[in-house]
Order: sequence, then structure tokens, then C-alpha cells
Amino acid sequence: MTRLPKLADLTPNITGWGFFLCTRKESRSGRSGAEYLEITLQDVSGEVRAKVFQDVETVKLEFDAGEFVKAQGRSNVYQGRLELILDRIRRVLPDRDAADGFKEDECIRCAPRPVDEMWAELTAAVASVEDPALREVLAAIIDRHADRLRVWPAARTVHHAYRSGLLEHILTMMGVLVFLGDRYGARRDLLIAGALLHDIGKLQELSYDTATDYTLEGNLVGHIVIGVGMLHEAVRDRPGIPAALVTELEHLIVSHHGELELGSPVRPMTVEAFLLSAVDDLDAKLHQVRRHLDEDDLPGRFTAVNRRLERSLLKPSTP
Amino acid sequence: MTRLPKLADLTPNITGWGFFLCTRKESRSGRSGAEYLEITLQDVSGEVRAKVFQDVETVKLEFDAGEFVKAQGRSNVYQGRLELILDRIRRVLPDRDAADGFKEDECIRCAPRPVDEMWAELTAAVASVEDPALREVLAAIIDRHADRLRVWPAARTVHHAYRSGLLEHILTMMGVLVFLGDRYGARRDLLIAGALLHDIGKLQELSYDTATDYTLEGNLVGHIVIGVGMLHEAVRDRPGIPAALVTELEHLIVSHHGELELGSPVRPMTVEAFLLSAVDDLDAKLHQVRRHLDEDDLPGRFTAVNRRLERSLLKPSTP
Amino acid sequence: MTRLPKLADLTPNITGWGFFLCTRKESRSGRSGAEYLEITLQDVSGEVRAKVFQDVETVKLEFDAGEFVKAQGRSNVYQGRLELILDRIRRVLPDRDAADGFKEDECIRCAPRPVDEMWAELTAAVASVEDPALREVLAAIIDRHADRLRVWPAARTVHHAYRSGLLEHILTMMGVLVFLGDRYGARRDLLIAGALLHDIGKLQELSYDTATDYTLEGNLVGHIVIGVGMLHEAVRDRPGIPAALVTELEHLIVSHHGELELGSPVRPMTVEAFLLSAVDDLDAKLHQVRRHLDEDDLPGRFTAVNRRLERSLLKPSTP
Amino acid sequence: MTRLPKLADLTPNITGWGFFLCTRKESRSGRSGAEYLEITLQDVSGEVRAKVFQDVETVKLEFDAGEFVKAQGRSNVYQGRLELILDRIRRVLPDRDAADGFKEDECIRCAPRPVDEMWAELTAAVASVEDPALREVLAAIIDRHADRLRVWPAARTVHHAYRSGLLEHILTMMGVLVFLGDRYGARRDLLIAGALLHDIGKLQELSYDTATDYTLEGNLVGHIVIGVGMLHEAVRDRPGIPAALVTELEHLIVSHHGELELGSPVRPMTVEAFLLSAVDDLDAKLHQVRRHLDEDDLPGRFTAVNRRLERSLLKPSTP
Amino acid sequence: MTRLPKLADLTPNITGWGFFLCTRKESRSGRSGAEYLEITLQDVSGEVRAKVFQDVETVKLEFDAGEFVKAQGRSNVYQGRLELILDRIRRVLPDRDAADGFKEDECIRCAPRPVDEMWAELTAAVASVEDPALREVLAAIIDRHADRLRVWPAARTVHHAYRSGLLEHILTMMGVLVFLGDRYGARRDLLIAGALLHDIGKLQELSYDTATDYTLEGNLVGHIVIGVGMLHEAVRDRPGIPAALVTELEHLIVSHHGELELGSPVRPMTVEAFLLSAVDDLDAKLHQVRRHLDEDDLPGRFTAVNRRLERSLLKPSTP
Amino acid sequence: MTRLPKLADLTPNITGWGFFLCTRKESRSGRSGAEYLEITLQDVSGEVRAKVFQDVETVKLEFDAGEFVKAQGRSNVYQGRLELILDRIRRVLPDRDAADGFKEDECIRCAPRPVDEMWAELTAAVASVEDPALREVLAAIIDRHADRLRVWPAARTVHHAYRSGLLEHILTMMGVLVFLGDRYGARRDLLIAGALLHDIGKLQELSYDTATDYTLEGNLVGHIVIGVGMLHEAVRDRPGIPAALVTELEHLIVSHHGELELGSPVRPMTVEAFLLSAVDDLDAKLHQVRRHLDEDDLPGRFTAVNRRLERSLLKPSTP
Repeated sequence: MTRLPKLADLTPNITGWGFFLCTRKESRSGRSGAEYLEITLQDVSGEVRAKVFQDVETVKLEFDAGEFVKAQGRSNVYQGRLELILDRIRRVLPDRDAADGFKEDECIRCAPRPVDEMWAELTAAVASVEDPALREVLAAIIDRHADRLRVWPAARTVHHAYRSGLLEHILTMMGVLVFLGDRYGARRDLLIAGALLHDIGKLQELSYDTATDYTLEGNLVGHIVIGVGMLHEAVRDRPGIPAALVTELEHLIVSHHGELELGSPVRPMTVEAFLLSAVDDLDAKLHQVRRHLDEDDLPGRFTAVNRRLERSLLKPSTP
Repeated sequence: MTRLPKLADLTPNITGWGFFLCTRKESRSGRSGAEYLEITLQDVSGEVRAKVFQDVETVKLEFDAGEFVKAQGRSNVYQGRLELILDRIRRVLPDRDAADGFKEDECIRCAPRPVDEMWAELTAAVASVEDPALREVLAAIIDRHADRLRVWPAARTVHHAYRSGLLEHILTMMGVLVFLGDRYGARRDLLIAGALLHDIGKLQELSYDTATDYTLEGNLVGHIVIGVGMLHEAVRDRPGIPAALVTELEHLIVSHHGELELGSPVRPMTVEAFLLSAVDDLDAKLHQVRRHLDEDDLPGRFTAVNRRLERSLLKPSTP
Repeated sequence: MTRLPKLADLTPNITGWGFFLCTRKESRSGRSGAEYLEITLQDVSGEVRAKVFQDVETVKLEFDAGEFVKAQGRSNVYQGRLELILDRIRRVLPDRDAADGFKEDECIRCAPRPVDEMWAELTAAVASVEDPALREVLAAIIDRHADRLRVWPAARTVHHAYRSGLLEHILTMMGVLVFLGDRYGARRDLLIAGALLHDIGKLQELSYDTATDYTLEGNLVGHIVIGVGMLHEAVRDRPGIPAALVTELEHLIVSHHGELELGSPVRPMTVEAFLLSAVDDLDAKLHQVRRHLDEDDLPGRFTAVNRRLERSLLKPSTP
Repeated sequence: MTRLPKLADLTPNITGWGFFLCTRKESRSGRSGAEYLEITLQDVSGEVRAKVFQDVETVKLEFDAGEFVKAQGRSNVYQGRLELILDRIRRVLPDRDAADGFKEDECIRCAPRPVDEMWAELTAAVASVEDPALREVLAAIIDRHADRLRVWPAARTVHHAYRSGLLEHILTMMGVLVFLGDRYGARRDLLIAGALLHDIGKLQELSYDTATDYTLEGNLVGHIVIGVGMLHEAVRDRPGIPAALVTELEHLIVSHHGELELGSPVRPMTVEAFLLSAVDDLDAKLHQVRRHLDEDDLPGRFTAVNRRLERSLLKPSTP
Repeated sequence: MTRLPKLADLTPNITGWGFFLCTRKESRSGRSGAEYLEITLQDVSGEVRAKVFQDVETVKLEFDAGEFVKAQGRSNVYQGRLELILDRIRRVLPDRDAADGFKEDECIRCAPRPVDEMWAELTAAVASVEDPALREVLAAIIDRHADRLRVWPAARTVHHAYRSGLLEHILTMMGVLVFLGDRYGARRDLLIAGALLHDIGKLQELSYDTATDYTLEGNLVGHIVIGVGMLHEAVRDRPGIPAALVTELEHLIVSHHGELELGSPVRPMTVEAFLLSAVDDLDAKLHQVRRHLDEDDLPGRFTAVNRRLERSLLKPSTP
Repeated sequence: MTRLPKLADLTPNITGWGFFLCTRKESRSGRSGAEYLEITLQDVSGEVRAKVFQDVETVKLEFDAGEFVKAQGRSNVYQGRLELILDRIRRVLPDRDAADGFKEDECIRCAPRPVDEMWAELTAAVASVEDPALREVLAAIIDRHADRLRVWPAARTVHHAYRSGLLEHILTMMGVLVFLGDRYGARRDLLIAGALLHDIGKLQELSYDTATDYTLEGNLVGHIVIGVGMLHEAVRDRPGIPAALVTELEHLIVSHHGELELGSPVRPMTVEAFLLSAVDDLDAKLHQVRRHLDEDDLPGRFTAVNRRLERSLLKPSTP
């Protein structure tokens, strides 16, 4: 039996095996009384829902959510989405499976750009900040949180919900903001700071190992307020940074959802804050649009309805 | 000419003089071209709008907003509200006017209960907190911010908008919360903490001398996020307090407006947070209702429409 | 086989038997074509969903919704909620089953406080009303409707949805209102009347035998308008009660949902009506919060999402 | 000096005198300190705002709101609306002014159709109801409330806000409903009853002498709930009418605003209730549209913005 | 085995066969792994959901969605709605089945009135338009689009969603509008034009063969904008029609949903546009109400909740 | 007396004269009875409100709205905004005033970039479109509408509400869209077309001479639907352009307000439509922000509340 292609390239009616990360495993009992497993598998390129109907009693002991697995089965379209019906699945035996090509990194869904390249771009952007006190604070923040900032997802499910997704989101926004700031006469330093800081609270709002979840603090306080606390921490011992500048940075974090009903306790009141919230919304929305277009498997010119966007999308015709 | 009664007791068509704090002074030019002054005067019991139509050129040099004044005139009903038409107004000369009974405290609108009595109640409530780490943090907070906490208003205009109004609001809520917490099985310690902390950010959101205004930070960040920062500051050097407890305290502050569209970035998720936001809303609303009933001077069974409550109120008939 | 614990104390994987009231019985045919029964069982402490997969043809003839049953099976967690998978179920044979401890009262979900104790409290509260005409009307109302008022639920599903739940709701509100009325200067008589009368229309909006449902009138007219009609009926032959007081009582009933979009055709315009609608909302919401916390069987610090509250709740950690 | 035309026919820059009903009289003091009077005058055809700038001290003693007046002045356009600037105004001296043609009826704004004609139509419609019990109840209601029903306005300001406006509104709706009921298969009896009863509570919600205002009950309870009470009163001693029919009549009254946020505690659930609320909305809206078109005095193809309709309207070009 | 009655007359537990149009055919795999078919069948009087559980592999090759079928089975109530459990189903063999009474027209759900009768009514209405230029344009439009206009449905699912439903909807509205236009003083010509044109864009928004779907243009542009384009096309070569009249016709099309959030980019600004949008809403809503009442199979006085109307309806009691 | 500076540079308390375009002239009668004029003056850099209190009877005959005027007076701050109190104002006498430096172009408020430069940029962008059929259509459109497109404002009041404002708005959007299209993988041709076409209907929605107003068609149909009509006109005789491309262009126009409640009958369904509506909103909002910051004359760190943005803005410190 052959190896399955990357999940992003999977098509219906393909049989084969592959290595994956299992990020969800639920036991369900159908109405007929029979138990089956519904699980989620991912590799570096995407994720897929999979089901096990046979030998459930035995199979379910052979792996858990959060583990790397070797799985074998057949792709199938169910209710307009691709899924895998598995014949076999077991946890990876690193020593043995290495021989067949198992590599952890290839089983974890990840941003498309290499993380080192992104990190270098972030470092360069911070170094280009003109105000020395601000530059120092931002440098300290990325230094202190480097471990998480390199790998964290930007969200649990909505957009950039994969390894290094937050970094990808920050950099895309930064590029767009610098361009727009030039057009609309905004202060470049604040835009770079805003792109970096606006979602910094997600490093504590979310837990991320191979799976992503909300922390206690994330649920009860939320990334906006957490982020302001992280900024405070960074400026505490730096008397050089003026209070009014800190307040503007806080404002950028606090207002970046744009409207109260979207979770910002204060709405944008500076040119930079208007730009930041508009670009954050744009980047998140376009990411969802692109992903929905990529993942749709329905025939016809239009996709299925996307529940979050509340609409179908037109698939671009081939060029 | 006789001295005017306290503003809360003022009725139409009374002529006399009094000492007041002038909290607003605006020069307006009527359509006829003539300039007049529109000002706001307050004493310990309330406030009133006043106008100067005569000798404006001269009179307007004799006092400024933020100063204590001696004013003389006649009360009048205009568009359903009482106002004073002044013949004379000048700044207070403390030495000379003391002889006529001028006392600063009697010219500043103030909560009805004596501040020392309220402060003692607050101190006692904090001392009654059972958890020692929490008690220590709360005690440190009221100690550190005592100067402001004793005199600050709870808002610029909406409710408890006068000297020591915030303290009054905290204590009323505390009393109600402890009672309700008993009925609904909530943790008393958290309720006391919530009553004290939920609006603590107002000490930095608002500036208050004799007039109240929003600070830079108040406008750009808001009292909810400021308050969390003040809590962080208080717990920073107290390793004894568990992180999960601090997170619950933050949750109380962050969720106390109850809904996102009211400025809470997170909604209540604990029994105590539900109670806190309900009681905050109740106390603020009842304060507005009571004040609107007290200030209305319209004839008839119903008050004028209150713009914020968006309705008229039924005046209670005399007992 | 042992007897199951009270439903409120049931935990997963317990096998046993018990006496219950069956409040719902639906025959479903699974996709495999096999029929199964989905039913709801309750005892004095709570309720649980149960399923019968075996011998459905036979079993379904042995009991009906609305009957007391003896059931035997095993508790199980399905989609985060506890349910019973039944092996046997049949209607109670009162004579025979009494020997095994069957008592009707223990099979009907009921408010936690004894009804006689609650009734005494209600009677005392009415007797404490100062205005003689009002006192007489209220006494006549509880007298006339005593049979229903003692046992009626406060709702079909949302809150206090069990035997004597309406009485429990009235008394909790009364206690809170009297306390708040003292703090906020409201007329105690009106608050007691408001607590008693605001939901009185539910006695005709809902039918309640052992199950609760909406009546024709309940669906088409609703408890607010029904309640005003019941008040009219009570005051008709009592010329002593002033028309303006009756109008204020009507206002309390009519405005107690607080906002038009919540079903009140008029919004609160008196201090008492503001308090009544706030306390009604608070009591209903806290009841839902408490119940959701009690019923949740998910692992972790947070409950499942409550559809009506539209959020998860933090489970209180053990003290 | 000549007599002014009917108010509906008044154009700018006409000088003359007339007899009117004064429905509002307010004393205002301009910023220059000078007092002036702002009043509202009406005759059978419409109403107009008027001002008195001269001899205010004297003039204001010569009439009151609610009195018939003789007034003299000049028409003028101010902020896009016609008004009268008065030189003289005094209360009517019936004996003397009769000689000049004063007739009360011509000074009270009134529905365009003669009231006796409308009343005959109403009586005939009730007589045409097929169900004898329902016919008897409706006949009793119009008999009992004939005095008010003949003259009452349908609203204080919004639509049909003049003498006999309610009767006019009822009859227009009845005609439309009978037609639509035929098309959409609704029960004619219920439609006639709905047209008659839906706003019957306005007879007690509004007070009307020559001016219209809300009563205590009107403010605190509202015409929907009042109307149900009036229906109850009428059916009390008529055992012949089935309870289910009464409930459907109540439903028609209660649901006739169509949506909760428009003040209906219950939404339409029968074909007749859907029709009634749609036709009520249509008749009220068309009345506003027609009146706004008639009253507009702006030049150009579009009217001024109507605050309630929240838009300008296109004036029909002349045929 | 006997022939089944018309679908509109079908009741539970009837066994028989019939000819239908199959409008939907979906293969589903149940949790037990077994595949079954869920399909929709219609005849001239209505439609029904049907399922095939047996011999699925074979049966599913014997017909497709869009084909006429002969089916045999038994009616059953599932979740409150009638459905057919089929034993056999195959595509119609026109030659052979004609002998058993197969007629295409009787298998396509259709408006209740004969299309030729409706078309004659439409033609007469257009001929009655007084303005010759407008009459000519309207005549040209119905002439040009006659093929589609005779058979098109008014919607995919909501209302009049069957053969000739659009024509039925236009004519009902026209009748009501002419009546109301007379009452409310609107221009008859414009009302007839509005009834004809308001949904004319549906001829291109929807594709309709035997099934109805949205076209590319329908999804991306919508019938309002499409309709204006169709009007432009018709007036292009007719210089006789004044530009202002065309603009009013465009306004009728563009504003006929009444509010922006319902998809009208402009709200009604003429008497005719107010009437048109009110009557369109009324006709669509009443059609849904009537259909929901007709299709409901629940026991009891109330129907199941209609998802679009967001409520249950009261079933009229039998006379 | 010296000449006043450009309006954008005007500060309080400057006396002088200047040439302006008068865009509004209203006669108002103050409460004292005295008439005064309130007018709006503009020059190339901005606009200002002005008042005439003296010799109104004479002065008001010497100029009209829509004329160029010479005015003399003094700048003054009234209610936080700069205004001019005029001593003299008369219409320009071109021959005589040319000697003093009168030039029409300097009296008409205008986009900051020279129109010829903008036009060249637009032409180049259209020429860069790759698809020949689309390029040809766009070229035909700018050619046909060049006269208006060069000078039209983008709105009556909200944003870019001055000469050539529409062209400025199109070009800013085009630049931003091309940049973003590159980042988010959108089709460049469609973005250039979208920027050009989305507001093309404004050329007929608005009339513009020196003043801007809505046309009959603008009010009744709106620029979205008008714009689609203009596109149709352009493609009519160009069979080369595929229907599906035209539909996508229509979609861009129709969906560019993003949401139904903002006037788009259809919401974005393609990547390009998402980008277009986001960038349109951004450009309009940032223009309002920038203008409100520029025009504010209040002291302090915050501007007055902007009614449309519903907030104050923070003024950037440092020049």
C-alpha cells in the first residue's frame, strides 16, 4: 500500500497510509449501539477528520489525542468535506517508524513560511524602530517571549490556527501597516509596535503543545487585558520610555478589535489604532476566505456556506 | 438680602446670595449679538445651572471655573429645570468671606454620608476578609490609594458624580453583595474584593480636583484595563496569593460591565461575577432614577424624559 | 442489584434500579432502522435522560409519559451529560412497589424547601403588608389560587422548572426585594405585591400535572396579560382599593421583564418596578447558573457551553 | 383685514385673522432676555405653530391652552415649515364672535369624513358579524363606549391624531382587512372584531378633551393591556361566548404590534393576527406618509427628512 | 397495491404507489455504516421527503434527481413530518407508464390556478395601464419574457416555490395593490408596474428546469439589480417614456424589500413604493403561514416551530 | 486691511478680506426678531461657516449661494469651531476683482493633488490591465465620463467632499488594492476595475456644479445600482468581454459596501470583493479621521466628538 499525499493535496478515493498528529479523539456510540471513533489528524500542510468503525474496542487503546500516529485508510467525501475512513491506526514508534520516514515536524500543521526566516524579519523590523526607548522595549519583549512567539498559533480555530501562525499573522500585518502608514501619514514606529503587541496576550491566553486550547486566564481575562499586563511588565524597569507613549501602546492593544461588541473595551482614537484594527480584521478575514476556498470539496462554482463568514464563496475559475 | 437655601432645597422665585463652587463657565453670544455667561454652580447638596446677562464684560473677569464664588440672584424655571439668573458673581475672598460663613466643604457637592464613617466601614469590610493573602492585598490597595479613594467621584456625570461618590458606590454595592452572596451561595471574600476593585481604575481614569474629567489614560485605555494594572501592582510582591485567585479577581474587574457591548471584554463566568455585574448595574441605575426624581421640577405626575434612561418616571405621590 | 442514588447524586458507571416519574417518552428510529426509546426520568432531586435499546417493541407498551415507573440500568456519560441506558422499565404497581419504598413525592422533582414552610412564609409576608386594602387583595389572591400556587413550577424549562418552583421563586425574590427596598428607599408593600403578582399569570399560562406545558391561553396571550386579568378579578369587588394603586400593581406586572424586546409592553417607570425587573432577572439567571454548574459532567475547569447563557462557566474549585 | 384661509390651505406671506383652538402655550425667554410665546393653533383642517413677540406680558393673560382664540397675524416659513407670527390673540367671546362666524366645530381638527357617516358604517359592520355571541359582545362594546369612540383620536401625535381619528383608523383597517381576508382565507368575523378591538384601549390610554395626552394608566400600563381588560369586562356576563374565541380575541389585541420590540408581548400566531398587525402598520405608515407630503413646504422634488420615517419623500409631480 | 393519493392529501400509514418528480437525491451513510437514500418527491399538489433503506446499491442506479419516477412505499410520521419509506423506486418509462396514467404535468408542483387563466389576467392588467408609454414597455416585457414568466417559481424554497409561483405571486399582489391604491390614493399605473417588475430579476436570478437553483448572476448580483437591468433593456429603444418615470420604476424595484438589511439598497420614498414593499412582505408571509399550517402533521392545537417565522402557529379549529 | 490666509491656515481673531465661493446662504430670524445670515464659504483649501449680523436687509441682496464673493470680517471660535463674523460681503465682479488677485480655481475646494497628475495616473493604471477586453471597457468608461470623473466629489459631505475628490479616492484605493492584492493573491485586473467602477454611479447620483447635491436618480436609486447600469452601457457593444467577467465586475460594484445594512444588496463573495469593500471603508474612514483632526479647534489633547465616528480623537502630539 502506498503512502498518502500531504493532506493539502488529498483527493477523494485514495487509499494509503501516513504519519500524523492526532489532535482530537472522541468515542461516539451510534444509534445502533455500535461505538465508533471520530478523530482529527494533521500534518504540516493541513488537517482532516477521520473515523474508525472497525475493531473499535481494540484500536482505541492504541493511541491518544496529542500523540503522533501511523494510520491507514481511504479518503471519502461526506457532507461535502473530505474525510478518512481508517482501517488501522496506532501510535508512532519513533525508532521503528523513523525508518519509514517519520519526522515530527512533518506531522504538525505549520505556517507556510520557515520560522527562521520569519523570525529574522521580525528582528529586523524591531531593529528599524526609530525611537530608541520603544525599540528597546520591543526588543526585550521578543527576546523574553521568543520561545513561544516562534511557534504559537494565532487562534484555536478561526485563523492562522497552526504552528507559528501568530508570527505569520504579525508579519503580514506589519508589512501591510507600514505600507498603509506611509499612505495615510501614520507613525511607523507605532504601527510596528502595534503589529507586534496587539495579540501578544495570546501567548498566555492559549496553551499550545501540539494542540491549542484556552488557559484559565485566557477564558477569564482574555488576550487583550493579558497583553496590556505583558507590556507593563516589559516597561516596568525602563524609565526612559515616556508614560504617554506607553499609554498609546496600551491603546493600540486595547482597541484593536475595533468595536466594543467585538471585545475591545475602548474604540480606536488615533490614526494608528484605526489602521491596526482595520488591518487585523482584514488579515483574519482574508485568511478565512482563502482557507475556505482551499478546503472546499463541493462540486459547482460556489463553496458550501462558511458558518463564520455566513455565506458561500465563488471559487475562482482556473486561469 | 437673605442667604439662599442649600441647592437641594431651592425652589422657584427665591432671591438671595450664597457661596458655591463654579465648575463650568462658558461665554456664549446670543443671536442678538449680546454675550452672556452660562455657568454651573454647586454646593454640598447639589448643583444648578446659572446665567449672567448683565455687565458680562466686567463680571466675566471676576471668577473662573474651578474657583469658589459668591453669587447673588434669583431662581427661575426654564424648560422644566430650575436655574439661577445672577445679578452678581465674584470669586471668594477667603479671609473676608469666612466672616459671612464661607466654608470650602459646604461648596463641594458630596456624598450624603460622612467620609470618615464610610472609610471606617470600608476598612472593617476588608478586615473581615477570611483569606489572609487576599485580605493583605486589599488592605494594601486601600492604604496605597487612600487619598484618592476617600474623595473620588464614581463618574463624570452619570451616577455618584460627586466628592466621595466612588466610596459610596463601593459600600452600597458591598452591602448588597454580601446579602445576595448569602442567598445565592457565593464566596463572600470575592464579593468584597469585587466591590472594592471593580471601579478602582477610576482613580486613574478620572482626574478630580473640584471638577471631574477624563485623563489621557482614561480616554485611551479605560478604567477596566487600568484597574487590572493596579491590581497587578498590588500583588506583584506578594507571592503568597495564588495565581488562580488573582485570575478570578481580574475576571471580576474585567467582566463587571456584564456584556461586551457595554465595555467588558469578557462576560461573567462565575457566580460572583454574575452578582457583581448585576449589582453594579442596579446601583448605578437606581442612583440615576432617584436623582432624576429628585431633580425634576415639572408639574404633573410624570417627570421629563431622562435621556439616559430613555423614559419618563412616575413621581411617587406624597404619603 | 442495588437501588440507584438520588438523581442529583448520580455519577457515571453506576448500575441499579429506582422509582421515577417519566415525563417524556419518544420513539425514535435510528438510521439503521432499529427503533429505540428516548425518555426523561425525574425524582425529587433532579432529572436525567434515559434510553432503551433492547426489546423496544415490548417495553414501550409497559409505561407512558406521565406515569411513575420502575427502571433498571446503568449510568453513562454521553456528549458530556449523564444518561441512563435502561435494561428494564415498567409502570409502577403502587400496591406492590410500596413495599420496595415507592413514594410518589420522591419521584416528582421539587423545590428544595418544604412547601408548607414556604407557604407559611408567604402568608406571613402578605400579613405584613401595611396598607389594609392591598393586604386584603393579596390575601384573597393567595387564598383563591392556593392549590396551584403551592405546587406550580415557575417555567417549563428555563428556571425553577419543578414542583413548587414558582413559590420558591416568589419567596427568594421577596426576600431580596425587601432588603433592597430598604437600601434604595422603595415602598415595601409594593415590593411584596410585585414579588407575589409578577408571575401569577403563570398559573394559567402553564398547565402542570406532573408535566409542564403551555396552555392555549399561555401561548396566545402570555402570563403578563393573563396576570393583569387575574389581578382585575381580585380587585373587582373591593371598592376600598384606590384606582391609582391598582394601576401601579398592573405596572409592576406589565413591566417586570424590563424591556420591550423581552416581552414587557411597558418599561419600568417607578423605583419598585426597576427593582422588581432587576431582581427577577437576577434570580432567574442565578438559578440557571447554579443549575448548569450542578448538572455539568465535563472534566476540566470549565463547563460545557450553556446555550441559554451563551457561555461556559468556571467551576468553583473545591475549598 | 381679511380672514385667513383654512390652515390646510394656508400659504406663506398671508396676513389676516381667524378663529382657532389653542392646544399649546409656552412662555420662552430668548437669550436676549426677552420673553416670547410659542403656541399651537388648530382648526378643523390642520394645525400650525404660532409665535407672539410683542406685548407678551399683556397678551399672555388673554388666553390659555385649551381655549378657543381669535388671532391675527402673518404666515411665514421658518426652517422649512409654515408658522404664524401673531400681532394679536385673545380668547373667544362666544356671544360676540358668533356674529363673525365663530363655530366650535370648525376650530377642532377632525377626521375628514363626517362622524355620523363613520358611525353608521361601524354599526353596520358589527351587525354583519355572523357569530351571534361575538356580534353581541361587539355591539355591547360600541354601545358602552360610543361617546368616546365617536370622537377619540388614534394617537397623541403620530397618526390620526385628531377628533374621530380612532374611528377613521378602525374603519379604514376594517375595509382593508375584509378585502384581504377574502383573498387569504381568513375568518371575516375575527377580522372585524380585530379592527374594532385592537386599539380600544386607547379610549383609556389617552385623555382627550380638545387636547390629547397620556393618562396615568396609559403611561404605566399601555393600551394593549388596557384593551384586554375592556374586552374582559364586556364578556364577563355573557356565558354564551366560548372561552377559546375570547382567547383568540385577546390574541388579536395583544399581538397587533407584530413584534415584541414594538410593544406586543406576544407575536401573531393566527392568519387573522398576521393580517391585523400588517394592516395596522400599513395604515399608520401610509397616514404618516400622506400627512408628511401634505405638510411639507420645502421647495424642490423632495420633502424635508421625516424624523419618524427617517427619510425624505418624493413629492408626486403634478399630473 | 393501490395508487397513493395526491401528496397534499396524503395521511400517515398509507401504502401504495405513484408517479413523482424526484427533485433531490442524496446518498447518506448511517453511523452503522449502512448507506441509505434520502430524496424529495413532488407532484402537482406538493412535496414529500422519502427514504430508501433496502437494496440501496441497486436502487440508486435506477433514477436520478431531476427525473420522473415511479415509487412505491408507505407513509410515516418522523419528527412531526410526513415522509415515505420506499420499497421500490425507478425512473419513469414514458411509453409504458402512460398506460398507468403517468402525465408529466401532474408530477410537477404547480400553482393552484391554471397558468393560461393567470396569463390572461396579467395581459389584461397590463392592457389596462393608462399611460401609453408605460403600457407599451410593460407589454414588451411580458412578451419578451413570456416563456419564463409563465412557469417560473417565485423562490427556491421560501414561498411560491413551484411552477408558475412567480406569476401567482405577481397577480395576487396586483389585486391587493390596486385595491389599496384606491384606498390610499396611489397611482394605479405604477402599482401594476411595480407588481409586475419588482421580482422580474428572478427570471435570471434563478434557474428552473424542474428544479430551482441560483444562477451565478443570481448569487453574485441578486434579483433586484438584475431586474433594473432588465427594465433598462426594455426602455432603451423607447424614447417616448420619460426619464423621471423610468427612475420611479427603478425605485419600485430597488426599494421593494423595504429596508437595507433586507437587501434593498434604497428604502421606499413614494406612496407606491411603500405599498409595494408592504404587500410583497404580506403576500410572502401569508403564503408561508398558510403552507406551514397545511403541512404540519403534529397532534395538538399548535404546529411545530417554523424556523423562518420563528414561532408555532395556532391551527384553526374545524368550523 | 490685509488679505485673510487660506482657510486651512485660518486661526482665531484674524481680521481681513478674501475671495470665496459661497456654497450656502440661509436667512435666520433670531429670537429677538432680528434677522441674520448664516452662510458657508470655501476656498481651495477648505471651508468655514460665516455669519452676517449687520445691515442684513441690504447685504442679503448682494450675493447668492453658488456665487463667488468678496467678504471681509473677523475669525472667531464658536462652540469649538472657527467661524467668520462678516462686516461686508458682495458678489465678485470678475473684471474689477481680478486686479486684486481673484481666481476662480482658488475659491473652489479641491483635492490636494493636481488633477492632471491624477488623471495621468488613472490612465496609466487602466493601460496596465492585462486582459484586453477588460482594458478596453475600462478605457471606454474613463473616456466617456472624463469630464465628470476629473472634477466630481466623492460625496456630498462625508469624505472627499470636494472638487476631484472622487478621482483622489479612486487612486488612493487603487494603490492600496494593488499592494494588498499582491499580498493576498487577488487578481490585479479585477482590483483596478473595482477601484475605478465601485463609485462610478456617483457621477449620476450627485449633481455638482460648485455645490454638490443628490439628483432625483441619486435619491431614488442610489449610486450602486446606477453604477451597474453604467457598466452595462459600456459593455453592451463589446461582445469580446465574457459574461462571467461582467458578472464579477457587477459583483464588485454591488457588494462594495460590504453589508446589507450599509446598502449593498449582496455581500462580498470573492477575494477581490472582500478587499474592495475593506479598502473602501478604510479610505473613507481614514479620510474622516484626518479631516476631523485637521479641523478641530478645541484646546486640549482630544478633539470634540465627531458625530459620524461617534467619538473624540487623540490629537497627535509633536508637530
